[in-house]
Amino acid sequence: MVKVGVLGATGMVGQRFIQLLSNHPDFELTTLAASSRSAGKRYEDATTWYLNDAMPEEVKDIVVCDTTPEAMSNDVDIVFSSLPTEFAAKVEKEFAKDYVVASNASAMRMKKNIPLVIPEVNPEYLDMIDAQQKENNWDGFIVTNPNCSTIALTLSLKPIADNFDIKSIRVSTMQAISGAGYNGVPSMAIVDNLVPYIGSEEEKMESETLHLLGNYDGEKVTDANFKLSASCHRVPVIDGHTEAVFIELEDDFELEDIKNKMANFKALPQELNLFSAPENPVIIKDEDYRPQPRMDRNAGNGMSVSVGRLRKDQAFDKSFKYVLVGHNTIRGAAGASVLNAELINDKIL
Amino acid sequence: MVKVGVLGATGMVGQRFIQLLSNHPDFELTTLAASSRSAGKRYEDATTWYLNDAMPEEVKDIVVCDTTPEAMSNDVDIVFSSLPTEFAAKVEKEFAKDYVVASNASAMRMKKNIPLVIPEVNPEYLDMIDAQQKENNWDGFIVTNPNCSTIALTLSLKPIADNFDIKSIRVSTMQAISGAGYNGVPSMAIVDNLVPYIGSEEEKMESETLHLLGNYDGEKVTDANFKLSASCHRVPVIDGHTEAVFIELEDDFELEDIKNKMANFKALPQELNLFSAPENPVIIKDEDYRPQPRMDRNAGNGMSVSVGRLRKDQAFDKSFKYVLVGHNTIRGAAGASVLNAELINDKIL
Amino acid sequence: MVKVGVLGATGMVGQRFIQLLSNHPDFELTTLAASSRSAGKRYEDATTWYLNDAMPEEVKDIVVCDTTPEAMSNDVDIVFSSLPTEFAAKVEKEFAKDYVVASNASAMRMKKNIPLVIPEVNPEYLDMIDAQQKENNWDGFIVTNPNCSTIALTLSLKPIADNFDIKSIRVSTMQAISGAGYNGVPSMAIVDNLVPYIGSEEEKMESETLHLLGNYDGEKVTDANFKLSASCHRVPVIDGHTEAVFIELEDDFELEDIKNKMANFKALPQELNLFSAPENPVIIKDEDYRPQPRMDRNAGNGMSVSVGRLRKDQAFDKSFKYVLVGHNTIRGAAGASVLNAELINDKIL
Amino acid sequence: MVKVGVLGATGMVGQRFIQLLSNHPDFELTTLAASSRSAGKRYEDATTWYLNDAMPEEVKDIVVCDTTPEAMSNDVDIVFSSLPTEFAAKVEKEFAKDYVVASNASAMRMKKNIPLVIPEVNPEYLDMIDAQQKENNWDGFIVTNPNCSTIALTLSLKPIADNFDIKSIRVSTMQAISGAGYNGVPSMAIVDNLVPYIGSEEEKMESETLHLLGNYDGEKVTDANFKLSASCHRVPVIDGHTEAVFIELEDDFELEDIKNKMANFKALPQELNLFSAPENPVIIKDEDYRPQPRMDRNAGNGMSVSVGRLRKDQAFDKSFKYVLVGHNTIRGAAGASVLNAELINDKIL
Repeated sequence: MVKVGVLGATGMVGQRFIQLLSNHPDFELTTLAASSRSAGKRYEDATTWYLNDAMPEEVKDIVVCDTTPEAMSNDVDIVFSSLPTEFAAKVEKEFAKDYVVASNASAMRMKKNIPLVIPEVNPEYLDMIDAQQKENNWDGFIVTNPNCSTIALTLSLKPIADNFDIKSIRVSTMQAISGAGYNGVPSMAIVDNLVPYIGSEEEKMESETLHLLGNYDGEKVTDANFKLSASCHRVPVIDGHTEAVFIELEDDFELEDIKNKMANFKALPQELNLFSAPENPVIIKDEDYRPQPRMDRNAGNGMSVSVGRLRKDQAFDKSFKYVLVGHNTIRGAAGASVLNAELINDKIL
Repeated sequence: MVKVGVLGATGMVGQRFIQLLSNHPDFELTTLAASSRSAGKRYEDATTWYLNDAMPEEVKDIVVCDTTPEAMSNDVDIVFSSLPTEFAAKVEKEFAKDYVVASNASAMRMKKNIPLVIPEVNPEYLDMIDAQQKENNWDGFIVTNPNCSTIALTLSLKPIADNFDIKSIRVSTMQAISGAGYNGVPSMAIVDNLVPYIGSEEEKMESETLHLLGNYDGEKVTDANFKLSASCHRVPVIDGHTEAVFIELEDDFELEDIKNKMANFKALPQELNLFSAPENPVIIKDEDYRPQPRMDRNAGNGMSVSVGRLRKDQAFDKSFKYVLVGHNTIRGAAGASVLNAELINDKIL
Repeated sequence: MVKVGVLGATGMVGQRFIQLLSNHPDFELTTLAASSRSAGKRYEDATTWYLNDAMPEEVKDIVVCDTTPEAMSNDVDIVFSSLPTEFAAKVEKEFAKDYVVASNASAMRMKKNIPLVIPEVNPEYLDMIDAQQKENNWDGFIVTNPNCSTIALTLSLKPIADNFDIKSIRVSTMQAISGAGYNGVPSMAIVDNLVPYIGSEEEKMESETLHLLGNYDGEKVTDANFKLSASCHRVPVIDGHTEAVFIELEDDFELEDIKNKMANFKALPQELNLFSAPENPVIIKDEDYRPQPRMDRNAGNGMSVSVGRLRKDQAFDKSFKYVLVGHNTIRGAAGASVLNAELINDKIL
Repeated sequence: MVKVGVLGATGMVGQRFIQLLSNHPDFELTTLAASSRSAGKRYEDATTWYLNDAMPEEVKDIVVCDTTPEAMSNDVDIVFSSLPTEFAAKVEKEFAKDYVVASNASAMRMKKNIPLVIPEVNPEYLDMIDAQQKENNWDGFIVTNPNCSTIALTLSLKPIADNFDIKSIRVSTMQAISGAGYNGVPSMAIVDNLVPYIGSEEEKMESETLHLLGNYDGEKVTDANFKLSASCHRVPVIDGHTEAVFIELEDDFELEDIKNKMANFKALPQELNLFSAPENPVIIKDEDYRPQPRMDRNAGNGMSVSVGRLRKDQAFDKSFKYVLVGHNTIRGAAGASVLNAELINDKIL
């Protein structure tokens, strides 16, 4: 068993980490770090638990430690980070001197030699790790996963990008409130309402997606060369981001072909049979009224993306449209980091 | 005062008609028609009132009549129709023999010589009326208004189409539950959820918008020649449709120029000072977090469309994006028919 | 394995039955009956599945049959009924000629010699079955469970009634929308709103609770002799009824004593280790802000009632107050019938 | 015109004050005070406006001042306070040296010689002002209004208390999220959920109601001598508190008599024709499904309390039940202070 810790353990994504790591076959959660306000307290006393499933028994008595490398138990190998961006920017590098850092924070995502990875999409970006370690003289390293709305979109795009030439994409999101953290969206802002703006979200989707579907030549990443524009909105849904996608290809296509490529998409995590890897990264829904966030967010234990309303775009040549739902705090956050760590554990450690 | 009636008076759009016609300076509401289940009862007894504002006193005692031309009081000139599509297809023609029919139903919208009109957009389509009357040998006529999501979009497009060459549009909607009628969306379907499909909505948006922004040469309408694709979704908002719009122009542009054209847009209803015409058909919101349906749906008494997040599209040349909110049962339904009738009353009757 | 069937299998409670019976160690679900509209179709084709968890694979291919005893497979022993009241009133008696009917319908609940049972509360009422069979000359029999809001209340009252003399109870409910069936509550009725009335609900709570906590002398039930008044309201919550309870006892008490009696309450289903019996029928929450429906409805797999805010009532002598949450379609409906059947299977069959 | 100011002008109740004082016939709003963060800025620049109706034009350019008596314009006579409790406790006394303070804060409500007033209920408590001024050597004075849920309850009780002998009351509330302030309730806490606790709310309801319905003998208040117990809960409703009330009288009664007394209740504000006084402080709804917060909160411009489901309590002698809805930030907060000020302006200034 690999010993693991969670940084930012009391927050909402931190709690998802704990939930996903409870009863994990390869990882043993031994260390929980949080702010100085929580450090020194039992986890149960330090935490207002937000998830619908109860707090796992085995973490209740863990004494929360400070978010410093020195505070870690000696035997931890991997730390999962759900730290706020600015704090992550400062502290993840400190941890990387000695630990594998699997980070959901956005701070380091687009930095040189920091792999931004979805295991089904671009596992080869892990090859950056050598250069990262040498450059920084680190024994550990940092691996990041993308933004929540990016992950769901990119997973659905991968079987398309592998088989067709994408020309352009427009995507309009309807994102869940949990994406903003427990206190992020006041109820007064969202009951009988929606909010048509999420800070930095469109920029992240537009840059990270092209980076993930790009090409790593051993030195640098060349972004995918299609065009991508996003419009991001918050709706009164607890968990599960929904995205309406408009795609133009360079060439003609059969819709059935697109559908089959998505439905049958399997990749490295499925081959390796990684614990958190869903049987099907992309699930096709044929019913008109699906996917819906409340009904489909938990597909594949929250690790699959559900795609529906796949249809030809009558207005544009060589174009089609679909709607997807992905779980934003599982596949879009904690589960993404855990799957990254499972891949690293299988291939590198 | 022109005497008017409402067909479908007990339904949700019917109630909006009653609300908007109460205290109207030019129209006197004298006749309320509904299904045979309601006919013969006092309106107050026949109706479960759904609007937040109380039922106007003056309609409570009106005895509901059948939905037949014969049942109308003799002195009615205009009937407003919020009938269900199939019933409208049958019965509106009967009414048109003697009455002006201002219809919110979709049945006749795209038929030859039936004007589909937004007074700020294409008032000249009313010139079809002559041909319509001759062709059918009617003393009255039918005028229709578009689908709720089409109206809001098209109003925002008009100042753009007047001043720039539109190449393509993608629009993704987040539509209010009231658009489906009172019993249309079960709460089980929409609490902590959204529904990614609205029957026929995308087809209506795609065809009606091009028709409205087209050209009528005195004989037939030539559709606008840009491309338009819609993806339509239902969200848990009571009233107010939100739409994320991606636009490509044929030529370069200054964003400030687009903004000014929208903000300063005035048209015939404003010139004629029609009672229901908003001072500004399009209102520009500069704050990042606007427009929001709960905050902006009532702008201009529900007759203005609020546009925000107007921004260059960095991914595509000659392109920009924005988000709009419009009140779906006022500007998008009953208010649209009433404004049509006001224009007709001013110019034709 | 006992073969079982579900009547009303396509409805919302019917779906819960299927979910709870999937992988049941003692019951094998072989027969699904529904209205003639569904009969003859594969279950998957006949049903719009409403639950967040996916439809169990093993029921998809079952061909739905008519709701008649003749349509049942020969080898079924128990049928679970979630039929509408009026239809249940007619048809459950037909089934009782040959089958054990475990019914969630209200039609027969308060009839002579029909046991209305919560296994933790009044298992001895099952003794009525003999008289029921003789009286009707049936080989099978009918057992019913109470209304959803009654079950949660009565479970929480049982450890109190066993140890203290209750004088009076007032209860005010905040009930989930799923209690009205999938199409029961329009979203227009409940978004940014609540509905202060649920037809017949208060009457059911007031009569069933006293009946359940009464005394069966082998011939008839004498109701519990305290007073009980209910006020019932619908709120925008998917699942989980919340109830605010005001209780007056006949004598003085220690609050800690009440709390311990509730927390330590175990009864026959726990002794018999019935499959669906929760470890703790009543769970005490100490945090001020609990219980909450979204957080606590699934406690004990939806079979426990969570009680919080237990406090002395400063205004009234010998009085206390608390708030409870119970899952209305699991413990309050399908799970209640299943637990009844498990008890019958253990003690009678 | 009396010049008035608002303390806490940028908050949610502060905004309601501004809305209600806009176009007021007797009060001219000249001064807006807020925290030092806002002081010195134009009101429009200092404020995120939360109300659905737009910010009144006339306040946009007012420069926000500090919350000190010195910062007030010289000619202000009345200041309305929506300050947080602790700050109010310190600063309202400073203002009372020179100004009339009409406060919605809870800090001073139950203090000796500070009138806690609902104009329809206990206007005679204003007689405390003389003693208050002498005792403190103030030229101004403080008048307070009760907690939001107390006001709605007490208004409905007044016509009962005037005509019958109340023995006991239990009340269970379903309170709107706006009562907690804009950022008070995270959406994660309340979507598909409710919160069964509101800090100090039950204590306020239990003490303030008895105080308001008590007797002031010129020296001190003797509380009403019935018993009152409250259980308070938060539900996902924007505005409008709903309360389920169980009442026991000392004597027998006719329900019709109770109903008539409530429906016909008029008091001093109605006699004086105060600007904000609703025609009917209590409105009786006969429909089973009313009152509902979204439909009834704006009755009487938000100043009336709607009472429905008035029914005999079959379980208890001499008892009845009802459900009420009142607007929590109009009648329950800003409107309450404004009506108090109107009464003071009419009778005292």
